[in-house]
Amino acid sequence: MTRTIKLAVIPGDGIGPEVIAEANRVLDAVLDGSDVALERTEFKLGADRFLETGETLPEIEQAAIAEHDAILFGAVGGVPGDPRLAGANIERGLLLKLRFDFDHYANVRPCTLFPGVESTLREPGTVDFVVVREGTEGPYAGNGGRLRSGTMAEVATEVSVNTALGIERVVRYAFETAQHRERRKLTWVHKTNVLVHSGATWQRIVEAVAVEYPEIAVDYLHVDAATIAMVQDPGRFDVIVTDNLFGDILTDLAGAIGGGIGLAASGNINPDGAFPSMFEPVHGSAPDIAGKQQADPTAAILSAAIMLDHLSLTAAAERVRDAVRADLAGRGAERRSTAEIGDRIIAHLSV
Amino acid sequence: MTRTIKLAVIPGDGIGPEVIAEANRVLDAVLDGSDVALERTEFKLGADRFLETGETLPEIEQAAIAEHDAILFGAVGGVPGDPRLAGANIERGLLLKLRFDFDHYANVRPCTLFPGVESTLREPGTVDFVVVREGTEGPYAGNGGRLRSGTMAEVATEVSVNTALGIERVVRYAFETAQHRERRKLTWVHKTNVLVHSGATWQRIVEAVAVEYPEIAVDYLHVDAATIAMVQDPGRFDVIVTDNLFGDILTDLAGAIGGGIGLAASGNINPDGAFPSMFEPVHGSAPDIAGKQQADPTAAILSAAIMLDHLSLTAAAERVRDAVRADLAGRGAERRSTAEIGDRIIAHLSV
Ligand SMILES: CC(C)[C@H](C(=O)O)[C@@H](O)C(=O)O
Ligand SMILES: CC(C)[C@H](C(=O)O)[C@@H](O)C(=O)O
Repeated sequence: MTRTIKLAVIPGDGIGPEVIAEANRVLDAVLDGSDVALERTEFKLGADRFLETGETLPEIEQAAIAEHDAILFGAVGGVPGDPRLAGANIERGLLLKLRFDFDHYANVRPCTLFPGVESTLREPGTVDFVVVREGTEGPYAGNGGRLRSGTMAEVATEVSVNTALGIERVVRYAFETAQHRERRKLTWVHKTNVLVHSGATWQRIVEAVAVEYPEIAVDYLHVDAATIAMVQDPGRFDVIVTDNLFGDILTDLAGAIGGGIGLAASGNINPDGAFPSMFEPVHGSAPDIAGKQQADPTAAILSAAIMLDHLSLTAAAERVRDAVRADLAGRGAERRSTAEIGDRIIAHLSV
Repeated sequence: MTRTIKLAVIPGDGIGPEVIAEANRVLDAVLDGSDVALERTEFKLGADRFLETGETLPEIEQAAIAEHDAILFGAVGGVPGDPRLAGANIERGLLLKLRFDFDHYANVRPCTLFPGVESTLREPGTVDFVVVREGTEGPYAGNGGRLRSGTMAEVATEVSVNTALGIERVVRYAFETAQHRERRKLTWVHKTNVLVHSGATWQRIVEAVAVEYPEIAVDYLHVDAATIAMVQDPGRFDVIVTDNLFGDILTDLAGAIGGGIGLAASGNINPDGAFPSMFEPVHGSAPDIAGKQQADPTAAILSAAIMLDHLSLTAAAERVRDAVRADLAGRGAERRSTAEIGDRIIAHLSV
């Protein structure tokens, strides 16, 4: 009996379509001959779509996407400074809207320095941690506004909204993640000495949940100190849990030290299953190299692997990761096109 | 005729007193035989003082500090998790209170990788930039609160308050800084695609001030991308201007790639001169190594050099920096005590 998985694909802008094409080829290859069939629907959304139709995420399309089992997302965003995009905010109107409306509260971003990959660090040591970034609140809430706009008396506010509900569920998810890893270590990151209100809520909840996980070693770092630790001693991290903004910053840094943002994968997970989870490379649309087959599709392919995990296709996920690992081990300084990298990873799949 | 400079000294906690002792010795040595006399008043403030007297920053002492020409600040903070400090917030009540009340709106943090110093990066290249961090508003405003505290319905907010006045003056300060440097480049950092309200205010003001500085090349990076740039291509930066929280994060990262936080100096500048400016190493009080003569006083000494600059004692400032440079060039992996490092830097002064 065939299991059919309904996959919504949002290639997006810039290099998005190129890297998603490779992720799709890898998915087809790894599921070839299995009892799993992918039924894809492509949604043309992003800056290009906005420029053509003025639409960012029509309700009817959002409803259609919601009917799928998972979402594979490329990257969105037009050329920086394009005046035609001045009024638009594709990031808030599309990417963050999906994360918020589909309650992707666990934004999972692994960071592994694979053998053969050169880190930007002199002595990286073993790098193998995962950041669980809160995905649905905090400074990303979108609250705030501007008063006396355009004058010298202008005041702009941004309200970070943090709820016990929102923090508790992502902290619990992070503890569960740590529970299933070898080192069983959790580092929570905040700025409790300055952001005292939300810091106190985070601290109370981490301490409360920690009681339920006595096997897990818990420590805390201020976000500024966490960046130092990440570049001086990344091996100290196992699972990191943090808020939406700190997670955004730390995972780009993690991408850089883990071999570059071209390898950084992520899953926007709705663990409750009420909405489809969404899988996307951490990188952006990089319009400067779009269409040139220069983008590295590895981050998109590894994101597809996280998707396979999420769909309980664990063996397939492992095969993809093994193929990526094999490819990376032999890549060296060779320059290959986006499709050539896809080819090579697919070739390693069949071994 | 002797010029007398009234210096308020706040050694603080942990390694603060040790590193400030060396900075004071270097100041005495470099000003020895000059027509400048330092008149010091020491203020015992910080976690230790709080534990002894329950006081953080009594009004009368703050008023006394305000009467000085400059402040030399060590580091504050007790042992993490000390239950006797649970109710206190020395950071907000002392350090941030001084920054806010004394209107230290330009928090200046240079990052130079000196010859002979090993970076955590594999190929750092030339690292020589300065971060101008806003110091009096943004997410540090302290606005916000908690509702239904201690329950599962708890909501905690943090309000980032950003004013045209506050942004304009620090942006202008950064442009002036860039104007006096060779490369004349300014990178402003924010997260405009998510923090759209404050992002729009920042953007409007940067663009308006930029018109007055046509020689300066201006570019923009999202804060997440800025962390990548900092570890992959730090040479791209000349002057960075950013808000209080992003500046906090980026300057710790900068410290790490610039040879370690033991070398990172800063000035909390009130350019209007209405209040004394304050000079402090970026590092914390490190209670774990306090009193052991293990701390590197270089950051405190370089902070004293920034103070000399600020007091228009430019030649003395340069002599201190040259002495530090000479010492660092020959330091190698040798382990020296806090005082030995001070000795060696002083020895290089007299050459
Ligand atoms: C594009 C942007 C809104 C997004 C974010 O800030 O979350 C990106 O930086 C990311 O990390 O996925
Ligand atoms: C101690 C803390 C309040 C302070 C800050 O966040 O500004 C420190 O991290 C710094 O960078 O000077």
